[in-house]
Amino acid sequence: MDIATLLGLFGALAVIMSSIFLGGSVSTFVNVPSIVVVVGGTFMVSLCQISLSQFFGSFKVTLRAFMHKSISPEALIEEAVTLADVARKEGILALEGHDITDPFLENGVKMCIDGHSIEIVQKMLSKDINLELQRQNTGVQMFKSIAEAAPAMGMIGTLIGLVQMLANMDDPKSIGPAMAVALLTTLYGAIIANAIALPIAAKLKAISSDERLNKLLVLESVSGIQEGVNPRVLQQLLTAYLPESKREAALSK
Amino acid sequence: MDIATLLGLFGALAVIMSSIFLGGSVSTFVNVPSIVVVVGGTFMVSLCQISLSQFFGSFKVTLRAFMHKSISPEALIEEAVTLADVARKEGILALEGHDITDPFLENGVKMCIDGHSIEIVQKMLSKDINLELQRQNTGVQMFKSIAEAAPAMGMIGTLIGLVQMLANMDDPKSIGPAMAVALLTTLYGAIIANAIALPIAAKLKAISSDERLNKLLVLESVSGIQEGVNPRVLQQLLTAYLPESKREAALSK
Amino acid sequence: MDIATLLGLFGALAVIMSSIFLGGSVSTFVNVPSIVVVVGGTFMVSLCQISLSQFFGSFKVTLRAFMHKSISPEALIEEAVTLADVARKEGILALEGHDITDPFLENGVKMCIDGHSIEIVQKMLSKDINLELQRQNTGVQMFKSIAEAAPAMGMIGTLIGLVQMLANMDDPKSIGPAMAVALLTTLYGAIIANAIALPIAAKLKAISSDERLNKLLVLESVSGIQEGVNPRVLQQLLTAYLPESKREAALSK
Amino acid sequence: MDIATLLGLFGALAVIMSSIFLGGSVSTFVNVPSIVVVVGGTFMVSLCQISLSQFFGSFKVTLRAFMHKSISPEALIEEAVTLADVARKEGILALEGHDITDPFLENGVKMCIDGHSIEIVQKMLSKDINLELQRQNTGVQMFKSIAEAAPAMGMIGTLIGLVQMLANMDDPKSIGPAMAVALLTTLYGAIIANAIALPIAAKLKAISSDERLNKLLVLESVSGIQEGVNPRVLQQLLTAYLPESKREAALSK
Amino acid sequence: MDIATLLGLFGALAVIMSSIFLGGSVSTFVNVPSIVVVVGGTFMVSLCQISLSQFFGSFKVTLRAFMHKSISPEALIEEAVTLADVARKEGILALEGHDITDPFLENGVKMCIDGHSIEIVQKMLSKDINLELQRQNTGVQMFKSIAEAAPAMGMIGTLIGLVQMLANMDDPKSIGPAMAVALLTTLYGAIIANAIALPIAAKLKAISSDERLNKLLVLESVSGIQEGVNPRVLQQLLTAYLPESKREAALSK
Repeated sequence: MDIATLLGLFGALAVIMSSIFLGGSVSTFVNVPSIVVVVGGTFMVSLCQISLSQFFGSFKVTLRAFMHKSISPEALIEEAVTLADVARKEGILALEGHDITDPFLENGVKMCIDGHSIEIVQKMLSKDINLELQRQNTGVQMFKSIAEAAPAMGMIGTLIGLVQMLANMDDPKSIGPAMAVALLTTLYGAIIANAIALPIAAKLKAISSDERLNKLLVLESVSGIQEGVNPRVLQQLLTAYLPESKREAALSK
Repeated sequence: MDIATLLGLFGALAVIMSSIFLGGSVSTFVNVPSIVVVVGGTFMVSLCQISLSQFFGSFKVTLRAFMHKSISPEALIEEAVTLADVARKEGILALEGHDITDPFLENGVKMCIDGHSIEIVQKMLSKDINLELQRQNTGVQMFKSIAEAAPAMGMIGTLIGLVQMLANMDDPKSIGPAMAVALLTTLYGAIIANAIALPIAAKLKAISSDERLNKLLVLESVSGIQEGVNPRVLQQLLTAYLPESKREAALSK
Repeated sequence: MDIATLLGLFGALAVIMSSIFLGGSVSTFVNVPSIVVVVGGTFMVSLCQISLSQFFGSFKVTLRAFMHKSISPEALIEEAVTLADVARKEGILALEGHDITDPFLENGVKMCIDGHSIEIVQKMLSKDINLELQRQNTGVQMFKSIAEAAPAMGMIGTLIGLVQMLANMDDPKSIGPAMAVALLTTLYGAIIANAIALPIAAKLKAISSDERLNKLLVLESVSGIQEGVNPRVLQQLLTAYLPESKREAALSK
Repeated sequence: MDIATLLGLFGALAVIMSSIFLGGSVSTFVNVPSIVVVVGGTFMVSLCQISLSQFFGSFKVTLRAFMHKSISPEALIEEAVTLADVARKEGILALEGHDITDPFLENGVKMCIDGHSIEIVQKMLSKDINLELQRQNTGVQMFKSIAEAAPAMGMIGTLIGLVQMLANMDDPKSIGPAMAVALLTTLYGAIIANAIALPIAAKLKAISSDERLNKLLVLESVSGIQEGVNPRVLQQLLTAYLPESKREAALSK
Repeated sequence: MDIATLLGLFGALAVIMSSIFLGGSVSTFVNVPSIVVVVGGTFMVSLCQISLSQFFGSFKVTLRAFMHKSISPEALIEEAVTLADVARKEGILALEGHDITDPFLENGVKMCIDGHSIEIVQKMLSKDINLELQRQNTGVQMFKSIAEAAPAMGMIGTLIGLVQMLANMDDPKSIGPAMAVALLTTLYGAIIANAIALPIAAKLKAISSDERLNKLLVLESVSGIQEGVNPRVLQQLLTAYLPESKREAALSK
């Protein structure tokens, strides 16, 4: 799990909470019906857009994505170069017993050993990358739909509160507190969207795009191994996937 | 029909209703002229954008989409592998009498039996997929246009109410209730857009994208069958369409 | 002219008008300077973005688009199949004297008769489709720019009214009516944008996309006729342009 | 210079001004600090996004674009057909001394005379078109960034004014005028964005897209001339760039 | 460092500050809890979206991008033409000892000397360009996410302040100042987003797009050198990367 994400997520909520505590009366900010409208309504609207299995599935995907520590591109390059070295010296079949860390790389190498043509291997791995990307996108979409639904439900809650308040303005003293309660749903909606759902969606997208880059690197590695490219040339080719500052180190290995 | 969608749709409305009931006077929230402006206006604006036949057609499409239970990709893969097996052993013409569940797969296989070349079959199926996608998009667009028109009509209604209230401020006591009524159209617009139209549009889009993936799977199956690909290889190729967790099960069949 | 568009356009305005009439004083909603700011300003801003000839031209295009009843795809398919039949039996030159309803189809067939190669014919028709699409897009853009300019001018008018009101708050009684007048420009802007300009832009886009589909159908027909494709195969190919429910009927002809 | 643009630009400002004059006190709408915040702030924010030379360059580009009267496509087609005629009859080298109006066409023809291959000529002209488009886009972007910055600076100015007013509410009488002043920056921002920057950006984009079409026409002309296409065929090919209503006239020449 | 950016950045803040100073009480605009909510919350939300190393890395990238003075395209063209001249006269290996200013050009030439084929060199340089673009995009994204988070946190802060104020309206005199404080977070958010984060994001994007153009120029230079294109032709080809006004000067060198 990336610590920055956890830190940011709880930090943002902590900052907001501290601002509420500093103002004194915390109880002013807790209103059960308002919470029900915003949280319940957002949940319902999100649920509506996907099937039940997808709904629970995307929480699992999310958790796995946060927990999952993806292999660094440097390690992938090193492994690919080692495999290319073996394949060039002893033939591609010599990779049969080899222990490969990354499952996607393993899958690709296995297809090469099975004797599929380069075009088939590339096509299958490419499709795998695209379809995986689409599946990960479901999680991103769900948090984005939460980020859209929460402020909308907040606004609906505030409008309901305002209408109730305006229709019964007998006691001028009650206007202030009634409006405070009405504004609470808007506040809840803004917090859920901006401090929780949007950052998670952005993080999931970043993870997914990192993984995609790693998989493209593997795709290129497998092509190189199958074609018997010189391991040094392959290494140079793959270092393009690293930022300039890390290339020196990777090439010197 | 997917139960999550129904649950979400009615759940969201129930949550909003409960928030209104908790506030006491339900009658405050019912104002016939306001309903006419928002619902009628939204209906008119949406009608304006499409032809009458499309208008009623897209409701039918919507209903069918909700009712229609699409075939699971696992079943499609199984069926395709069985067909590939027969085609490889007994020739493609042996598929003539075969009973095929999915109409799109059936259509593709029939074209193969009719002796069309691979390029023609692929081209026709691809075009079919694209044009079907465009037709389903009409339904999505209609609910999106409702989701845009409803808040706009709500705002127009509220502005009309505000102008009427501000022009006749003789009795200060009437300001509150008048403004409550004025806000009602905004509330109606927000509910129609966010709790009804947007979720349905999102759901229709998700269904359409699921079907597209299924059809791409069929397209690939038909190509494989026609080219006489080894059924095991075809199966492996098609399992890329499944999430990783379901691949094991599909391959072991 | 599509009746749904007219109905929707006038219906939306009627609904809004009825809401104003129900409130009593219609005169409150008529303010000549406000109308001048919103309508005049929107006109000027739209004019600014295009040349004078384009400005008047796009009204003509719009009117023609509304009046123009495009040929149904079924009729196009039938005509194309008849032509393909003739071309296959008597050679492509036999189409010379033939009377063809659709001008775009006629144009394509004429090019075939003139002996241009398939590549040239396809290239010219494709370019024609793309450039026509770009020209029709000018009309869509103009109504979109109106839909953006009207609320902006409405807001500018309201701000001017508010500043004038706030600067002279001597008589508290005049505040209400002054603010009512200030809000009128926002109301005008919202009505022009949401009940007139946006629906027309959406309709024009739908017409343009329908025509594009028809023209793609013709493009494919012409290719088929020139290549001497079997009329039955051509018919099957073209029915992909119809929704599933209409295919049976089209194929049985 | 296109007269519609000038008319629209000044017309929009005139309409807004007239609305202010009708309200009486013009001086209410002039507040130097407010003008400084909005105009100065918008200038600074726009400056920040580009280099100084680009900043002044894009004003020059803008002015030139407004002044520059682009050659009509009809004239271009006529010229191209004449050149194609000469090239077909007397060989491409006969175009050497020819006087060509459009510099882009001249450049293309010169490359043909220099004996570059068709691929090289097409590649160089295409790149020229794309890079020119990117350069013109800088001007569009600058006015778009002004259109984004001005309302933002207006809002910042209004917030500053509101905070100052709310913090010192001793004299209730001063609230109205203070708020009027606070709103002025929002008004300035809205006028700069909607009545000046956005229309200019839209106009620049339209000019740039017109020029692009003209250049594509030239690109096709040059290819035709170099390949020795029949002038009549070339003419027919190029008329696709004209709207249908003008084709007859162009072909009869 | 581009002076326009610095000038714009500090100028915008100076303009805003001056507007505050002119109003008198500067202390009204300083509220530590409000600063904590907006700055702290924005920091946390941005942190949440990327890993810690990326977070600090993108500040470094940003600083480098601002400091880094990219080579002018004119200088690149001159250098490329010189190299092409040498390569044509003495063979590509003669470039071995040559001192090349631009590291990307040097890298490309080195690959040519190493004897890689044209396709490999092009593929590797292209990939380098694309991946570098993606890495620079991370910095742009971070400032964009700050520009989205800051107003959101500002709104959350203002809502919290409003709820606190409305819940305790005993002393009518305190309403004004309390609301002033509540509005401060919105003001902070607007300033951070519009006067700091958005302009920097736009500037970073412009730098990145400039560099991309330079790198495409180098890519084309390297292809030309490797293919032994005539230096004069190469020069003409590369000047397309310059605006028209600078081409004459570049060609006369």
